[in-house]
Amino acid sequence: MSRILYSLCGADASAPFSPHCWKVVLALRHKGLEFTERPVGFTEIPKVENGFSKTVPILKDGDALISDSFAIALYLEQTYPDAPSLFKGEGGLAMARFVEAWSLSTLHPAVTRIALKNIHDRLAPADQAYFRESREARLGATLEEVATGREAAIAAFPEKLTPLRNMLKFQPFIGGSEPLFSDYIVFGAFKWASQTGNTELLDPNDPVTNWYERVEAFTEKG
Amino acid sequence: MSRILYSLCGADASAPFSPHCWKVVLALRHKGLEFTERPVGFTEIPKVENGFSKTVPILKDGDALISDSFAIALYLEQTYPDAPSLFKGEGGLAMARFVEAWSLSTLHPAVTRIALKNIHDRLAPADQAYFRESREARLGATLEEVATGREAAIAAFPEKLTPLRNMLKFQPFIGGSEPLFSDYIVFGAFKWASQTGNTELLDPNDPVTNWYERVEAFTEKG
Repeated sequence: MSRILYSLCGADASAPFSPHCWKVVLALRHKGLEFTERPVGFTEIPKVENGFSKTVPILKDGDALISDSFAIALYLEQTYPDAPSLFKGEGGLAMARFVEAWSLSTLHPAVTRIALKNIHDRLAPADQAYFRESREARLGATLEEVATGREAAIAAFPEKLTPLRNMLKFQPFIGGSEPLFSDYIVFGAFKWASQTGNTELLDPNDPVTNWYERVEAFTEKG
Repeated sequence: MSRILYSLCGADASAPFSPHCWKVVLALRHKGLEFTERPVGFTEIPKVENGFSKTVPILKDGDALISDSFAIALYLEQTYPDAPSLFKGEGGLAMARFVEAWSLSTLHPAVTRIALKNIHDRLAPADQAYFRESREARLGATLEEVATGREAAIAAFPEKLTPLRNMLKFQPFIGGSEPLFSDYIVFGAFKWASQTGNTELLDPNDPVTNWYERVEAFTEKG
């Protein structure tokens, strides 16, 4: 098989955790496309496909190489137009960009604060040094300092989901009657948290929890 | 002409200010549909069309009566399918619900805090009593108490636009290359603020300000 998804893992290759890679996993399942996932550590990314991209996900599809989760979703939509759509039209494609911007600016900083130290602790030793140096430079604080805000970030997390929770009064998915790439964008943030050991950020009866379970069921049925 | 939009005004009928009514004004312009706007005061709404709805907007289109801005947009899309689409597909329609939920839960509470006292002061006397009583009951505080948070709400406002601002790095409108109903949903919140005297919530060079001006230009060109 010639379709390979390079994703991100820690010491345990069976628990890939990158939110952006999970978006692509679900997009590939949505399209019904077979693929082999090859999780790599942070410091291995520059060796993937001759240094094609500084970040994963990287999708190798036959001769095509694509990086960036949204670009991969666009590629899949254009390359496999007869498989179920990831956007359901021009408006859905445009608004997935809004959902992405919301998720990145609202959920990702929170999950960073909640999961950062857990992520570090799960990495292979070579990656831990890279991770600590790059993240501490980006955040302007040590991993341990960021971790002091963890409980407060967990407490504040459910309120950040208010737009999604309110939308779910009208329809079961962001994409409407079935999930679309916009659902996988938000799902990725939750999967990132759960794969790094933060599994109880929401109440089991929260409508957002129920939505997460529906997305998971939909993409695992294939 | 048989198309009437009942909207909301204060003592000055030439300055309708309801965010939900503005969404419909722009949706009607988007569809290229002529209409007569009839702004009414809060206490006149129960007399409109024999008490058809407790809230405006109400659209009377020939024999049809529709209330609720999203329901009106759906009606317009179904009734005038050959006019420019308000959603551009099933995905765009579904995700407009997410944009609506985001705007209602993020922008509307802020504009309420910023504009509430201004709105009261612009109402006709009969509406002022209704407005004070209903809003103070809903908010659990006097209008004057809410107004004490006005400056802080103004200071915090630009940060709430981060998802929109970041999305604008990719495309000029929430709807993509041209505005859709999702743009008008968010535009309505800004127009509500500006029509009640709160015109300088964002920096003139903020990408969100430029987006607002583009939406206005697009819907006024017809």
